[in-house]
Amino acid sequence: MKLRQLGEDRLLDQLLHRLPFGKTVAVGAGDDCALVAPPAGRNFLVLKTDCAVEGIHFLRRANALDVGWKAMMRPLSDFAATSALPQFALITLIASKETEVGWVRKFYRGLRKAAARFKVSIVGGETSSTRGPIAVSVSVVGFVEKNRWVSRRSGKVGDDLFVTGQLGGAIKRKHLHFVPRIAESRWLTKNFSIHAMIDLSDGLGIDLPHLAHASKVGFEIEMENLPLNRGAKIGNALSDGEDYELLFASSPRQSKRLLRSWRQKFPRLPLTRIGSLIPQSAVRNPQLPGGYVHFQ
Amino acid sequence: MKLRQLGEDRLLDQLLHRLPFGKTVAVGAGDDCALVAPPAGRNFLVLKTDCAVEGIHFLRRANALDVGWKAMMRPLSDFAATSALPQFALITLIASKETEVGWVRKFYRGLRKAAARFKVSIVGGETSSTRGPIAVSVSVVGFVEKNRWVSRRSGKVGDDLFVTGQLGGAIKRKHLHFVPRIAESRWLTKNFSIHAMIDLSDGLGIDLPHLAHASKVGFEIEMENLPLNRGAKIGNALSDGEDYELLFASSPRQSKRLLRSWRQKFPRLPLTRIGSLIPQSAVRNPQLPGGYVHFQ
Repeated sequence: MKLRQLGEDRLLDQLLHRLPFGKTVAVGAGDDCALVAPPAGRNFLVLKTDCAVEGIHFLRRANALDVGWKAMMRPLSDFAATSALPQFALITLIASKETEVGWVRKFYRGLRKAAARFKVSIVGGETSSTRGPIAVSVSVVGFVEKNRWVSRRSGKVGDDLFVTGQLGGAIKRKHLHFVPRIAESRWLTKNFSIHAMIDLSDGLGIDLPHLAHASKVGFEIEMENLPLNRGAKIGNALSDGEDYELLFASSPRQSKRLLRSWRQKFPRLPLTRIGSLIPQSAVRNPQLPGGYVHFQ
Repeated sequence: MKLRQLGEDRLLDQLLHRLPFGKTVAVGAGDDCALVAPPAGRNFLVLKTDCAVEGIHFLRRANALDVGWKAMMRPLSDFAATSALPQFALITLIASKETEVGWVRKFYRGLRKAAARFKVSIVGGETSSTRGPIAVSVSVVGFVEKNRWVSRRSGKVGDDLFVTGQLGGAIKRKHLHFVPRIAESRWLTKNFSIHAMIDLSDGLGIDLPHLAHASKVGFEIEMENLPLNRGAKIGNALSDGEDYELLFASSPRQSKRLLRSWRQKFPRLPLTRIGSLIPQSAVRNPQLPGGYVHFQ
Protein backbone atom coordinates (compact mmCIF):
# COMPACT_ATOMS: atom_id res chain seq x y z
CA MET A 1 0.00 0.00 0.00
CA LYS A 2 1.16 3.56 -0.72
CA LEU A 3 0.98 6.55 1.64
CA ARG A 4 -1.53 8.14 -0.72
CA GLN A 5 -3.96 5.28 -0.06
CA LEU A 6 -3.55 5.35 3.71
CA GLY A 7 -3.54 9.11 4.46
CA GLU A 8 -1.69 11.04 7.14
CA ASP A 9 -4.16 10.48 9.98
CA ARG A 10 -4.20 6.72 9.75
CA LEU A 11 -0.43 6.59 9.22
CA LEU A 12 0.18 8.65 12.37
CA ASP A 13 -2.38 6.58 14.31
CA GLN A 14 -0.59 3.40 13.35
CA LEU A 15 2.88 4.69 14.13
CA LEU A 16 2.18 6.68 17.26
CA HIS A 17 0.38 4.12 19.37
CA ARG A 18 3.52 2.01 19.19
CA LEU A 19 5.66 4.64 20.85
CA PRO A 20 6.42 3.73 24.45
CA PHE A 21 7.63 6.46 26.71
CA GLY A 22 8.74 6.99 30.27
CA LYS A 23 7.00 8.79 33.09
CA THR A 24 8.84 12.04 32.31
CA VAL A 25 6.43 12.43 29.36
CA ALA A 26 3.11 14.09 30.30
CA VAL A 27 1.75 14.49 26.76
CA GLY A 28 3.41 12.60 23.89
CA ALA A 29 2.79 12.39 20.17
CA GLY A 30 -0.76 13.08 18.97
CA ASP A 31 -1.38 16.50 20.49
CA ASP A 32 -0.27 19.92 19.25
CA CYS A 33 2.90 19.92 21.34
CA ALA A 34 4.64 17.40 23.60
CA LEU A 35 4.87 18.20 27.31
CA VAL A 36 7.72 16.69 29.30
CA ALA A 37 9.43 17.15 32.65
CA PRO A 38 12.38 19.55 32.49
CA PRO A 39 15.80 18.28 33.61
CA ALA A 40 16.17 18.26 37.37
CA GLY A 41 18.75 20.19 39.33
CA ARG A 42 21.33 22.57 37.97
CA ASN A 43 21.71 21.08 34.50
CA PHE A 44 21.75 22.60 31.05
CA LEU A 45 19.04 21.73 28.59
CA VAL A 46 20.71 20.33 25.45
CA LEU A 47 19.19 20.76 21.97
CA LYS A 48 20.24 19.30 18.64
CA THR A 49 18.66 18.72 15.24
CA ASP A 50 20.03 16.73 12.34
CA CYS A 51 18.70 15.30 9.10
CA ALA A 52 19.06 12.36 6.73
CA VAL A 53 18.26 12.92 3.06
CA GLU A 54 17.79 10.26 0.38
CA GLY A 55 20.63 10.40 -2.14
CA ILE A 56 22.89 12.19 0.36
CA HIS A 57 22.87 10.26 3.65
CA PHE A 58 21.26 7.07 2.39
CA LEU A 59 20.31 5.44 -0.90
CA ARG A 60 16.78 4.48 -1.89
CA ARG A 61 17.73 0.82 -1.86
CA ALA A 62 18.97 0.98 1.75
CA ASN A 63 17.03 -1.04 4.32
CA ALA A 64 14.41 1.31 5.88
CA LEU A 65 15.27 -0.11 9.30
CA ASP A 66 18.87 1.09 8.85
CA VAL A 67 17.71 4.50 7.63
CA GLY A 68 15.61 4.96 10.78
CA TRP A 69 18.53 3.85 12.93
CA LYS A 70 20.92 6.28 11.25
CA ALA A 71 18.47 9.22 11.31
CA MET A 72 18.11 8.85 15.09
CA MET A 73 21.78 8.17 15.79
CA ARG A 74 23.13 11.20 13.89
CA PRO A 75 21.95 13.82 16.42
CA LEU A 76 22.77 11.41 19.27
CA SER A 77 26.38 11.44 18.07
CA ASP A 78 26.38 15.19 18.72
CA PHE A 79 25.12 14.46 22.23
CA ALA A 80 28.17 12.19 22.63
CA ALA A 81 30.41 15.06 21.48
CA THR A 82 28.84 17.30 24.15
CA SER A 83 28.91 14.52 26.79
CA ALA A 84 25.16 15.04 27.19
CA LEU A 85 22.36 12.55 27.86
CA PRO A 86 19.48 12.51 25.33
CA GLN A 87 15.88 12.13 26.58
CA PHE A 88 13.27 13.18 24.00
CA ALA A 89 13.08 13.13 20.20
CA LEU A 90 10.81 14.74 17.59
CA ILE A 91 10.62 13.28 14.07
CA THR A 92 9.79 15.05 10.80
CA LEU A 93 9.24 12.71 7.87
CA ILE A 94 8.95 14.27 4.40
CA ALA A 95 8.04 11.63 1.81
CA SER A 96 6.23 11.31 -1.50
CA LYS A 97 2.70 9.93 -1.42
CA GLU A 98 3.96 7.10 -3.61
CA THR A 99 6.15 5.83 -0.75
CA GLU A 100 5.25 2.33 0.40
CA VAL A 101 3.59 2.29 3.83
CA GLY A 102 5.73 -0.79 4.59
CA TRP A 103 8.85 1.34 4.10
CA VAL A 104 7.59 3.94 6.57
CA ARG A 105 6.67 1.29 9.18
CA LYS A 106 10.11 -0.28 8.91
CA PHE A 107 11.75 3.14 9.06
CA TYR A 108 9.87 3.87 12.30
CA ARG A 109 10.95 0.48 13.68
CA GLY A 110 14.54 1.57 13.09
CA LEU A 111 13.91 4.90 14.82
CA ARG A 112 12.31 3.17 17.82
CA LYS A 113 15.10 0.62 18.09
CA ALA A 114 17.76 3.34 18.04
CA ALA A 115 15.82 5.48 20.54
CA ALA A 116 15.38 2.53 22.91
CA ARG A 117 19.15 1.87 22.84
CA PHE A 118 19.64 5.20 24.67
CA LYS A 119 16.30 5.34 26.53
CA VAL A 120 15.09 8.21 24.35
CA SER A 121 11.29 8.81 24.15
CA ILE A 122 9.91 9.75 20.73
CA VAL A 123 7.36 12.37 21.82
CA GLY A 124 6.14 13.86 18.58
CA GLY A 125 6.48 14.18 14.88
CA GLU A 126 5.18 15.62 11.72
CA THR A 127 4.71 14.25 8.24
CA SER A 128 4.53 16.07 4.94
CA SER A 129 4.29 14.97 1.36
CA THR A 130 6.86 16.13 -1.20
CA ARG A 131 7.57 15.73 -4.89
CA GLY A 132 11.21 15.03 -4.12
CA PRO A 133 13.38 12.48 -2.30
CA ILE A 134 12.64 11.31 1.24
CA ALA A 135 14.01 13.63 3.95
CA VAL A 136 13.99 13.04 7.68
CA SER A 137 14.79 15.50 10.41
CA VAL A 138 15.28 14.36 14.00
CA SER A 139 15.48 16.84 16.89
CA VAL A 140 16.67 15.66 20.27
CA VAL A 141 16.37 17.29 23.70
CA GLY A 142 18.27 16.19 26.79
CA PHE A 143 20.53 17.50 29.50
CA VAL A 144 24.10 17.75 30.72
CA GLU A 145 25.51 18.65 34.12
CA LYS A 146 27.03 22.13 34.25
CA ASN A 147 30.43 20.71 35.21
CA ARG A 148 30.51 18.04 32.51
CA TRP A 149 29.60 19.60 29.16
CA VAL A 150 32.27 19.76 26.48
CA SER A 151 32.34 22.10 23.48
CA ARG A 152 34.67 22.18 20.53
CA ARG A 153 35.98 25.59 21.62
CA SER A 154 38.23 24.96 24.58
CA GLY A 155 41.18 23.01 23.21
CA LYS A 156 44.54 24.32 24.50
CA VAL A 157 47.99 24.50 22.95
CA GLY A 158 49.86 21.39 24.04
CA ASP A 159 46.77 19.19 24.38
CA ASP A 160 47.01 15.63 23.15
CA LEU A 161 44.48 14.66 20.44
CA PHE A 162 42.72 11.29 20.69
CA VAL A 163 40.26 9.41 18.49
CA THR A 164 38.06 6.48 19.47
CA GLY A 165 37.66 3.45 17.21
CA GLN A 166 38.97 3.24 13.66
CA LEU A 167 38.56 5.60 10.75
CA GLY A 168 37.86 5.41 7.02
CA GLY A 169 35.64 3.34 4.76
CA ALA A 170 32.49 3.78 6.88
CA ILE A 171 30.40 4.29 3.76
CA LYS A 172 30.66 0.58 2.97
CA ARG A 173 28.53 -0.50 5.89
CA LYS A 174 29.18 1.17 9.23
CA HIS A 175 27.47 4.50 8.44
CA LEU A 176 24.08 2.80 8.70
CA HIS A 177 24.87 0.81 11.84
CA PHE A 178 27.02 2.96 14.09
CA VAL A 179 26.44 3.38 17.83
CA PRO A 180 27.10 6.92 19.09
CA ARG A 181 29.88 7.02 21.69
CA ILE A 182 27.65 8.37 24.46
CA ALA A 183 28.70 5.79 27.08
CA GLU A 184 32.37 6.41 26.29
CA SER A 185 31.94 10.18 26.38
CA ARG A 186 30.08 10.09 29.71
CA TRP A 187 32.85 7.91 31.17
CA LEU A 188 35.49 10.33 29.87
CA THR A 189 33.94 13.42 31.47
CA LYS A 190 33.25 11.57 34.70
CA ASN A 191 36.87 10.53 35.13
CA PHE A 192 38.99 13.02 33.19
CA SER A 193 39.13 16.66 32.21
CA ILE A 194 38.31 16.86 28.48
CA HIS A 195 39.06 20.28 27.00
CA ALA A 196 37.35 19.98 23.61
CA MET A 197 35.47 17.28 21.72
CA ILE A 198 33.70 16.77 18.38
CA ASP A 199 32.18 13.78 16.62
CA LEU A 200 33.70 12.75 13.30
CA SER A 201 30.82 12.96 10.84
CA ASP A 202 32.39 14.83 7.91
CA GLY A 203 35.83 13.20 8.20
CA LEU A 204 38.92 13.98 10.30
CA GLY A 205 40.16 16.31 7.52
CA ILE A 206 37.12 18.55 8.05
CA ASP A 207 36.21 18.02 11.69
CA LEU A 208 39.69 18.48 13.20
CA PRO A 209 40.14 21.89 11.53
CA HIS A 210 36.68 22.80 12.89
CA LEU A 211 37.74 21.93 16.44
CA ALA A 212 41.09 23.73 16.05
CA HIS A 213 39.47 26.81 14.49
CA ALA A 214 36.84 27.00 17.24
CA SER A 215 39.59 26.64 19.86
CA LYS A 216 41.77 29.24 18.09
CA VAL A 217 44.75 26.86 17.90
CA GLY A 218 46.57 24.85 15.26
CA PHE A 219 47.18 21.10 15.15
CA GLU A 220 49.62 18.49 14.02
CA ILE A 221 48.73 14.92 13.17
CA GLU A 222 51.01 11.90 13.17
CA MET A 223 49.58 10.41 10.01
CA GLU A 224 51.28 7.08 10.59
CA ASN A 225 49.40 6.70 13.88
CA LEU A 226 45.89 7.11 12.47
CA PRO A 227 43.81 4.04 13.43
CA LEU A 228 42.44 2.67 10.17
CA ASN A 229 39.50 0.41 9.45
CA ARG A 230 40.32 -2.72 7.48
CA GLY A 231 40.94 -1.77 3.85
CA ALA A 232 41.08 1.96 4.60
CA LYS A 233 44.08 4.15 3.81
CA ILE A 234 45.13 7.43 5.41
CA GLY A 235 43.23 9.35 2.73
CA ASN A 236 40.05 7.48 3.66
CA ALA A 237 40.50 8.31 7.34
CA LEU A 238 40.82 11.99 6.46
CA SER A 239 38.14 12.29 3.80
CA ASP A 240 35.49 9.56 3.87
CA GLY A 241 33.41 10.93 6.74
CA GLU A 242 30.56 9.11 8.52
CA ASP A 243 32.89 7.56 11.13
CA TYR A 244 30.86 8.90 14.08
CA GLU A 245 33.84 8.38 16.36
CA LEU A 246 34.95 10.96 18.93
CA LEU A 247 37.91 13.30 18.50
CA PHE A 248 38.97 15.04 21.70
CA ALA A 249 41.70 17.19 23.19
CA SER A 250 42.97 16.85 26.74
CA SER A 251 46.03 17.68 28.81
CA PRO A 252 49.06 15.48 28.07
CA ARG A 253 49.59 15.17 31.83
CA GLN A 254 46.73 12.71 32.10
CA SER A 255 47.30 10.85 28.80
CA LYS A 256 49.07 7.83 30.27
CA ARG A 257 46.43 7.23 32.92
CA LEU A 258 43.67 7.88 30.37
CA LEU A 259 44.98 5.29 27.90
CA ARG A 260 45.45 2.69 30.66
CA SER A 261 42.00 3.20 32.20
CA TRP A 262 40.36 3.23 28.76
CA ARG A 263 41.84 -0.16 27.87
CA GLN A 264 40.39 -1.62 31.06
CA LYS A 265 36.98 -0.03 30.63
CA PHE A 266 36.56 -0.47 26.85
CA PRO A 267 38.86 -3.36 25.90
CA ARG A 268 37.19 -3.81 22.49
CA LEU A 269 37.30 -0.18 21.34
CA PRO A 270 40.71 1.33 20.55
CA LEU A 271 41.65 4.79 21.80
CA THR A 272 44.55 6.32 19.87
CA ARG A 273 46.65 9.43 20.39
CA ILE A 274 46.92 10.90 16.88
CA GLY A 275 48.67 14.23 17.46
CA SER A 276 48.42 17.46 19.41
CA LEU A 277 47.23 21.05 19.40
CA ILE A 278 49.90 23.64 18.65
CA PRO A 279 49.97 27.45 18.36
CA GLN A 280 48.01 28.72 15.39
CA SER A 281 51.08 30.49 14.06
CA ALA A 282 53.03 27.22 13.94
CA VAL A 283 50.58 25.33 11.73
CA ARG A 284 52.49 23.42 9.13
CA ASN A 285 49.67 21.37 7.59
CA PRO A 286 46.72 23.73 7.32
CA GLN A 287 45.52 22.13 4.12
CA LEU A 288 44.36 18.66 5.01
CA PRO A 289 42.59 16.93 2.17
CA GLY A 290 38.96 17.67 2.99
CA GLY A 291 36.17 15.41 4.16
CA TYR A 292 32.61 15.59 2.95
CA VAL A 293 31.51 19.17 2.26
CA HIS A 294 27.81 19.82 1.69
CA PHE A 295 26.91 21.84 -1.41
CA GLN A 296 30.30 21.15 -3.00
CA MET B 1 26.11 33.08 -6.21
CA LYS B 2 24.92 29.49 -5.68
CA LEU B 3 25.27 27.43 -2.50
CA ARG B 4 27.65 25.13 -4.39
CA GLN B 5 30.09 28.03 -4.81
CA LEU B 6 29.90 29.16 -1.19
CA GLY B 7 29.97 25.84 0.68
CA GLU B 8 28.29 24.86 3.94
CA ASP B 9 30.93 26.26 6.32
CA ARG B 10 30.91 29.76 4.93
CA LEU B 11 27.14 29.75 4.61
CA LEU B 12 26.73 28.80 8.27
CA ASP B 13 29.38 31.32 9.32
CA GLN B 14 27.51 34.07 7.53
CA LEU B 15 24.11 33.12 8.87
CA LEU B 16 25.01 32.19 12.41
CA HIS B 17 26.92 35.26 13.52
CA ARG B 18 23.77 37.25 12.87
CA LEU B 19 21.74 35.31 15.39
CA PRO B 20 21.20 37.31 18.55
CA PHE B 21 20.14 35.43 21.63
CA GLY B 22 19.28 36.07 25.24
CA LYS B 23 21.21 35.23 28.37
CA THR B 24 19.38 31.90 28.75
CA VAL B 25 21.60 30.59 25.93
CA ALA B 26 24.98 29.28 27.14
CA VAL B 27 26.13 27.77 23.82
CA GLY B 28 24.28 28.67 20.63
CA ALA B 29 24.65 27.69 16.99
CA GLY B 30 28.11 26.62 15.85
CA ASP B 31 28.87 23.86 18.33
CA ASP B 32 27.73 20.23 18.31
CA CYS B 33 24.70 20.92 20.49
CA ALA B 34 23.08 24.02 21.93
CA LEU B 35 23.09 24.45 25.73
CA VAL B 36 20.36 26.53 27.30
CA ALA B 37 18.87 27.18 30.72
CA PRO B 38 15.94 24.87 31.50
CA PRO B 39 12.58 26.48 32.38
CA ALA B 40 12.44 27.68 35.97
CA GLY B 41 9.97 26.50 38.56
CA ARG B 42 7.31 23.86 38.20
CA ASN B 43 6.75 24.16 34.48
CA PHE B 44 6.51 21.62 31.69
CA LEU B 45 9.06 21.64 28.92
CA VAL B 46 7.18 22.00 25.61
CA LEU B 47 8.49 20.49 22.36
CA LYS B 48 7.22 20.84 18.81
CA THR B 49 8.60 20.29 15.31
CA ASP B 50 7.03 21.28 12.01
CA CYS B 51 8.14 21.61 8.42
CA ALA B 52 7.62 23.67 5.27
CA VAL B 53 8.19 21.98 1.91
CA GLU B 54 8.47 23.66 -1.48
CA GLY B 55 5.47 22.77 -3.65
CA ILE B 56 3.39 21.86 -0.57
CA HIS B 57 3.59 24.74 1.93
CA PHE B 58 5.09 27.36 -0.37
CA LEU B 59 5.81 27.85 -4.06
CA ARG B 60 9.24 28.42 -5.53
CA ARG B 61 8.27 31.92 -6.58
CA ALA B 62 7.27 32.91 -3.01
CA ASN B 63 9.36 35.60 -1.34
CA ALA B 64 12.09 33.85 0.69
CA LEU B 65 11.43 36.28 3.55
CA ASP B 66 7.82 35.03 3.72
CA VAL B 67 8.94 31.39 3.57
CA GLY B 68 11.23 31.93 6.57
CA TRP B 69 8.44 33.68 8.44
CA LYS B 70 5.97 30.87 7.77
CA ALA B 71 8.45 28.08 8.58
CA MET B 72 9.04 29.61 12.03
CA MET B 73 5.41 30.52 12.71
CA ARG B 74 3.98 27.07 11.94
CA PRO B 75 5.34 25.36 15.09
CA LEU B 76 4.67 28.55 17.08
CA SER B 77 0.99 28.19 16.18
CA ASP B 78 1.07 24.83 17.98
CA PHE B 79 2.54 26.61 20.99
CA ALA B 80 -0.49 28.92 20.84
CA ALA B 81 -2.79 25.87 20.78
CA THR B 82 -1.04 24.57 23.92
CA SER B 83 -0.96 28.03 25.56
CA ALA B 84 2.82 27.61 25.87
CA LEU B 85 5.63 30.16 25.54
CA PRO B 86 8.35 29.38 22.95
CA GLN B 87 12.01 30.08 23.80
CA PHE B 88 14.45 28.25 21.53
CA ALA B 89 14.41 27.11 17.90
CA LEU B 90 16.52 24.74 15.79
CA ILE B 91 16.49 25.01 11.99
CA THR B 92 17.13 22.30 9.39
CA LEU B 93 17.48 23.60 5.84
CA ILE B 94 17.57 21.03 3.03
CA ALA B 95 18.29 22.72 -0.31
CA SER B 96 19.87 21.97 -3.65
CA LYS B 97 23.40 23.25 -4.24
CA GLU B 98 21.98 25.26 -7.12
CA THR B 99 19.96 27.39 -4.69
CA GLU B 100 20.89 31.08 -4.74
CA VAL B 101 22.76 32.18 -1.61
CA GLY B 102 20.65 35.34 -1.73
CA TRP B 103 17.51 33.21 -1.32
CA VAL B 104 18.97 31.51 1.76
CA ARG B 105 20.02 34.82 3.32
CA LYS B 106 16.56 36.26 2.80
CA PHE B 107 14.95 33.08 4.11
CA TYR B 108 17.04 33.39 7.29
CA ARG B 109 16.03 37.04 7.62
CA GLY B 110 12.41 35.85 7.61
CA LEU B 111 13.18 33.24 10.26
CA ARG B 112 14.94 35.81 12.46
CA LYS B 113 12.14 38.34 12.10
CA ALA B 114 9.51 35.77 13.07
CA ALA B 115 11.63 34.50 15.98
CA ALA B 116 12.18 38.05 17.27
CA ARG B 117 8.42 38.68 17.24
CA PHE B 118 8.07 36.11 20.04
CA LYS B 119 11.53 36.52 21.66
CA VAL B 120 12.63 33.10 20.40
CA SER B 121 16.40 32.43 20.18
CA ILE B 122 17.58 30.44 17.14
CA VAL B 123 20.22 28.28 18.84
CA GLY B 124 21.24 25.82 16.15
CA GLY B 125 20.68 24.38 12.77
CA GLU B 126 21.79 22.00 10.14
CA THR B 127 22.03 22.20 6.41
CA SER B 128 22.03 19.44 3.83
CA SER B 129 22.04 19.36 0.09
CA THR B 130 19.33 17.48 -1.82
CA ARG B 131 18.38 16.70 -5.40
CA GLY B 132 14.79 17.65 -4.66
CA PRO B 133 12.73 20.66 -3.60
CA ILE B 134 13.66 22.87 -0.65
CA ALA B 135 12.48 21.53 2.71
CA VAL B 136 12.73 23.27 6.06
CA SER B 137 12.12 21.80 9.47
CA VAL B 138 11.84 24.01 12.56
CA SER B 139 11.84 22.57 16.07
CA VAL B 140 10.86 24.76 18.99
CA VAL B 141 11.39 24.29 22.72
CA GLY B 142 9.68 26.32 25.43
CA PHE B 143 7.59 25.96 28.55
CA VAL B 144 4.11 26.15 30.00
CA GLU B 145 2.91 26.38 33.60
CA LYS B 146 1.44 23.13 34.90
CA ASN B 147 -1.90 24.82 35.57
CA ARG B 148 -2.18 26.51 32.17
CA TRP B 149 -1.47 23.98 29.43
CA VAL B 150 -4.31 23.02 27.12
CA SER B 151 -4.56 19.85 25.03
CA ARG B 152 -7.06 18.88 22.39
CA ARG B 153 -8.29 16.00 24.56
CA SER B 154 -10.37 17.57 27.33
CA GLY B 155 -13.41 19.04 25.60
CA LYS B 156 -16.66 18.25 27.44
CA VAL B 157 -20.22 17.64 26.25
CA GLY B 158 -22.04 20.98 26.42
CA ASP B 159 -18.93 23.11 25.85
CA ASP B 160 -19.27 26.10 23.58
CA LEU B 161 -16.93 26.15 20.56
CA PHE B 162 -15.17 29.38 19.62
CA VAL B 163 -12.87 30.45 16.81
CA THR B 164 -10.62 33.48 16.66
CA GLY B 165 -10.40 35.65 13.55
CA GLN B 166 -11.92 34.76 10.21
CA LEU B 167 -11.69 31.60 8.16
CA GLY B 168 -11.24 30.60 4.54
CA GLY B 169 -9.19 31.82 1.60
CA ALA B 170 -5.90 32.03 3.54
CA ILE B 171 -3.99 30.54 0.63
CA LYS B 172 -4.35 33.82 -1.27
CA ARG B 173 -2.06 35.73 1.03
CA LYS B 174 -2.46 35.19 4.75
CA HIS B 175 -0.77 31.77 4.93
CA LEU B 176 2.62 33.42 4.45
CA HIS B 177 2.02 36.31 6.86
CA PHE B 178 0.03 34.99 9.80
CA VAL B 179 0.84 35.76 13.42
CA PRO B 180 0.31 32.79 15.77
CA ARG B 181 -2.31 33.55 18.42
CA ILE B 182 0.10 33.13 21.34
CA ALA B 183 -0.80 36.40 23.07
CA GLU B 184 -4.51 35.62 22.75
CA SER B 185 -4.04 32.06 24.00
CA ARG B 186 -2.01 33.18 27.01
CA TRP B 187 -4.67 35.73 27.88
CA LEU B 188 -7.38 33.06 27.58
CA THR B 189 -5.70 30.60 29.97
CA LYS B 190 -4.83 33.37 32.40
CA ASN B 191 -8.43 34.55 32.71
CA PHE B 192 -10.65 31.61 31.76
CA SER B 193 -10.83 27.84 32.00
CA ILE B 194 -10.22 26.48 28.49
CA HIS B 195 -11.06 22.78 28.20
CA ALA B 196 -9.56 21.97 24.78
CA MET B 197 -7.81 23.92 22.04
CA ILE B 198 -6.27 23.32 18.60
CA ASP B 199 -4.87 25.59 15.90
CA LEU B 200 -6.62 25.54 12.52
CA SER B 201 -3.90 24.52 10.08
CA ASP B 202 -5.65 21.87 7.98
CA GLY B 203 -9.07 23.57 7.98
CA LEU B 204 -12.01 23.51 10.40
CA GLY B 205 -13.42 20.45 8.57
CA ILE B 206 -10.33 18.43 9.58
CA ASP B 207 -9.19 20.06 12.81
CA LEU B 208 -12.57 20.17 14.60
CA PRO B 209 -13.11 16.40 14.12
CA HIS B 210 -9.56 15.94 15.48
CA LEU B 211 -10.40 17.90 18.63
CA ALA B 212 -13.75 16.12 19.03
CA HIS B 213 -12.23 12.67 18.42
CA ALA B 214 -9.41 13.31 20.92
CA SER B 215 -12.00 14.52 23.47
CA LYS B 216 -14.29 11.52 22.74
CA VAL B 217 -17.29 13.77 22.00
CA GLY B 218 -19.29 14.89 18.97
CA PHE B 219 -19.93 18.42 17.75
CA GLU B 220 -22.46 20.56 16.00
CA ILE B 221 -21.66 23.68 14.01
CA GLU B 222 -23.94 26.57 13.21
CA MET B 223 -22.73 26.99 9.66
CA GLU B 224 -24.41 30.36 9.28
CA ASN B 225 -22.31 31.71 12.16
CA LEU B 226 -18.90 30.83 10.72
CA PRO B 227 -16.78 34.01 10.55
CA LEU B 228 -15.61 34.27 6.94
CA ASN B 229 -12.74 36.14 5.36
CA ARG B 230 -13.74 38.51 2.57
CA GLY B 231 -14.56 36.47 -0.52
CA ALA B 232 -14.63 33.17 1.37
CA LYS B 233 -17.65 30.90 1.47
CA ILE B 234 -18.59 28.29 4.10
CA GLY B 235 -16.85 25.60 2.04
CA ASN B 236 -13.62 27.63 2.14
CA ALA B 237 -13.83 28.00 5.91
CA LEU B 238 -14.18 24.23 6.25
CA SER B 239 -11.66 23.07 3.66
CA ASP B 240 -9.03 25.63 2.71
CA GLY B 241 -6.75 25.21 5.71
CA GLU B 242 -3.81 27.45 6.66
CA ASP B 243 -5.99 29.77 8.79
CA TYR B 244 -3.76 29.39 11.88
CA GLU B 245 -6.60 30.65 14.05
CA LEU B 246 -7.52 29.03 17.38
CA LEU B 247 -10.49 26.73 17.90
CA PHE B 248 -11.33 26.09 21.53
CA ALA B 249 -13.97 24.56 23.78
CA SER B 250 -15.00 26.02 27.13
CA SER B 251 -17.91 25.92 29.54
CA PRO B 252 -21.02 27.83 28.34
CA ARG B 253 -21.31 29.29 31.84
CA GLN B 254 -18.44 31.67 31.13
CA SER B 255 -19.23 32.41 27.47
CA LYS B 256 -20.94 35.75 28.01
CA ARG B 257 -18.13 37.11 30.18
CA LEU B 258 -15.54 35.66 27.78
CA LEU B 259 -17.02 37.36 24.71
CA ARG B 260 -17.34 40.69 26.54
CA SER B 261 -13.79 40.65 27.95
CA TRP B 262 -12.37 39.54 24.60
CA ARG B 263 -13.93 42.48 22.78
CA GLN B 264 -12.32 44.85 25.25
CA LYS B 265 -8.91 43.17 25.12
CA PHE B 266 -8.73 42.39 21.37
CA PRO B 267 -11.10 44.86 19.71
CA ARG B 268 -9.67 44.20 16.24
CA LEU B 269 -9.80 40.38 16.31
CA PRO B 270 -13.25 38.77 16.25
CA LEU B 271 -14.07 35.88 18.58
CA THR B 272 -17.08 33.86 17.42
CA ARG B 273 -19.13 31.11 19.00
CA ILE B 274 -19.60 28.63 16.17
CA GLY B 275 -21.29 25.67 17.87
CA SER B 276 -20.91 23.23 20.71
CA LEU B 277 -19.69 19.80 21.75
CA ILE B 278 -22.41 17.15 22.02
CA PRO B 279 -22.49 13.45 22.94
CA GLN B 280 -20.72 11.28 20.39
CA SER B 281 -23.89 9.24 19.87
CA ALA B 282 -25.83 12.35 18.90
CA VAL B 283 -23.57 13.37 16.02
CA ARG B 284 -25.71 14.41 13.09
CA ASN B 285 -23.03 15.84 10.78
CA PRO B 286 -20.09 13.48 11.09
CA GLN B 287 -19.04 13.98 7.47
CA LEU B 288 -17.82 17.53 7.17
CA PRO B 289 -16.21 18.26 3.82
CA GLY B 290 -12.53 17.75 4.61
CA GLY B 291 -9.65 20.20 4.81
CA TYR B 292 -6.16 19.57 3.51
CA VAL B 293 -5.09 15.95 3.93
CA HIS B 294 -1.42 15.09 3.40
CA PHE B 295 -0.69 12.19 1.05
CA GLN B 296 -4.19 12.34 -0.46
